[in-house]
Amino acid sequence: MSGIADVARLAGVSKSTASRALTGGGYVSDETRRRVQDAAGSLGYVPTTSAVSLATGRTNTVALIVPRVNRWYFGSIIEGVERTLIPRGYDLTLYVAEPDSRDRASLYSHFLARKRFDGVIAVALEPDDADIARLLSFGKPTVCIGNELAEIATLGIDNTAIGRMITQHLLALGHRAIVFLGATPKGEPTAHDVIDRIAGYRQAMSGAGLSDRTGVYESTLTITDGYAAAAALLADVESRPTAIVAACDEIAIGAIVAARRLGIAVPSQLSVVGVDGHDYAEMFALTTVEQRPAAQGEQAVDILLGMVDNADAPARSTIPVQLVVRASTAAPR
Amino acid sequence: MSGIADVARLAGVSKSTASRALTGGGYVSDETRRRVQDAAGSLGYVPTTSAVSLATGRTNTVALIVPRVNRWYFGSIIEGVERTLIPRGYDLTLYVAEPDSRDRASLYSHFLARKRFDGVIAVALEPDDADIARLLSFGKPTVCIGNELAEIATLGIDNTAIGRMITQHLLALGHRAIVFLGATPKGEPTAHDVIDRIAGYRQAMSGAGLSDRTGVYESTLTITDGYAAAAALLADVESRPTAIVAACDEIAIGAIVAARRLGIAVPSQLSVVGVDGHDYAEMFALTTVEQRPAAQGEQAVDILLGMVDNADAPARSTIPVQLVVRASTAAPR
Repeated sequence: MSGIADVARLAGVSKSTASRALTGGGYVSDETRRRVQDAAGSLGYVPTTSAVSLATGRTNTVALIVPRVNRWYFGSIIEGVERTLIPRGYDLTLYVAEPDSRDRASLYSHFLARKRFDGVIAVALEPDDADIARLLSFGKPTVCIGNELAEIATLGIDNTAIGRMITQHLLALGHRAIVFLGATPKGEPTAHDVIDRIAGYRQAMSGAGLSDRTGVYESTLTITDGYAAAAALLADVESRPTAIVAACDEIAIGAIVAARRLGIAVPSQLSVVGVDGHDYAEMFALTTVEQRPAAQGEQAVDILLGMVDNADAPARSTIPVQLVVRASTAAPR
Repeated sequence: MSGIADVARLAGVSKSTASRALTGGGYVSDETRRRVQDAAGSLGYVPTTSAVSLATGRTNTVALIVPRVNRWYFGSIIEGVERTLIPRGYDLTLYVAEPDSRDRASLYSHFLARKRFDGVIAVALEPDDADIARLLSFGKPTVCIGNELAEIATLGIDNTAIGRMITQHLLALGHRAIVFLGATPKGEPTAHDVIDRIAGYRQAMSGAGLSDRTGVYESTLTITDGYAAAAALLADVESRPTAIVAACDEIAIGAIVAARRLGIAVPSQLSVVGVDGHDYAEMFALTTVEQRPAAQGEQAVDILLGMVDNADAPARSTIPVQLVVRASTAAPR
């Protein structure tokens, strides 16, 4: 049976480097880690991780908490996190639980309490969330993606600035009847990113002297709900807006599909702008703000593993975004 | 500090039941497990899992292998698996790696070789996949979702029967010019589910005496590629089919969007049928075959944890499916 010395010899590194590469204890370059993993693989050498874990306290595992999987934003983050962890030799333990749910409660009382992770990445926690204190109580490195939180390193976009930017884009084209579609429906958990985007929309409208022309309509953040909400909003010809600021691309796409069904031409009769940079944005010629969630997942891993190796973490990293103008927005007719 | 005896007392169960509930060693009802987990949570009691693992060989972890996250089918399976594992007290380790990729290779040589799981669920392995032998070499309970595989318990739908069923639906409406959209493009990895759906399409066409009228076109399984492929296919008025059998709902939705852009009315000028039962099917009034992947994920967990507890597993479970007829299919004009 092969030992760590054989692995080190085959990989052309010292025994201690080979050991670090396989157990995650300290810095090894990605290239060296790959070479050691390949050598270990070809020799069939595997460290006994339960024993390694008892000895080192390291689990080589990162826990990722998301409210759900099947939305493009969350799916992209998961893919970004995973493809960054694999070359670093880390396992990803995925926890899917909606805020305030029974599953979310057992996540803290049972799953995370087992502390089988070296660090946590949590997505879309709310600033007033009771989860934050529980998360911090584990004493493990923690990075959040989404809203800015006290005491936790966070990574995210400036949602107020984005709400302002996309509304100003429509104002600059000459629109006045601009509504916001995608406020969180009553009874649903608070979503601070949406609240901030609405605040930005109001600021821009107010800046253009249109405070009394604002209109904010509810929709959950899906294509299907955006479609239904837009169909209701656009049904009355008299009150119809000339432009929609959608809380996210899914709602914007739903609104474009609804407009087409109602025979309303986009963009000549209706402009629509979203936020996200969804995979479907180009197909629907959607003007949107790209926030690249997969890259946010990658960056969260870099920050987290830096913390695991005792480096300092930034309190807040604001991700740069980009307005991509396509054919869903134009001057009103 | 609280011990297992305190947890058992608070939950009103024996010490051995409390221990089983927290470590996964043997059968405990979901209700009892919840009660014990709640008691442990409120007392702050957590078993030292590295030590538990060394002593029992149990990890209370299931590994899930998927080629990607950000497709509705895979996202739904992940959600179904996760929501079934949480009440059973199991962690989910997620491995995202495309077949034949560098990440897929390191998955077997490094990650899975650490054996930090009690069982594996693998999605969309191909019957000729070299991964299968490596997966079996770990000697852990394994369940696959997707294609039927030798030696591994599999769970899936009958893709040939489905291809036949949706083609026969169009034939019964009076269509003759029916094409299949969604063959795997050259250079992409083989997809047996698609091959089987094409075989079913050909059987139905042949059964109607239309062997010489078949047409099979390439597209990857996404809305954007389905849109582009359909736009090319529908551009020529002369050769345009009256109906499209799409390999999956994403392609069918892309085809509907492309038809609308080209001014082709669905269903009066073009019928489109898909396979999946995608979240968007209703919004696009899509006739489709519902295969409920989240339920497949749930069922895979039930079978797998049965195997972990030494029960026999079925060699192959075929999931019942249902044709849902909506307004994307009608008699040709």
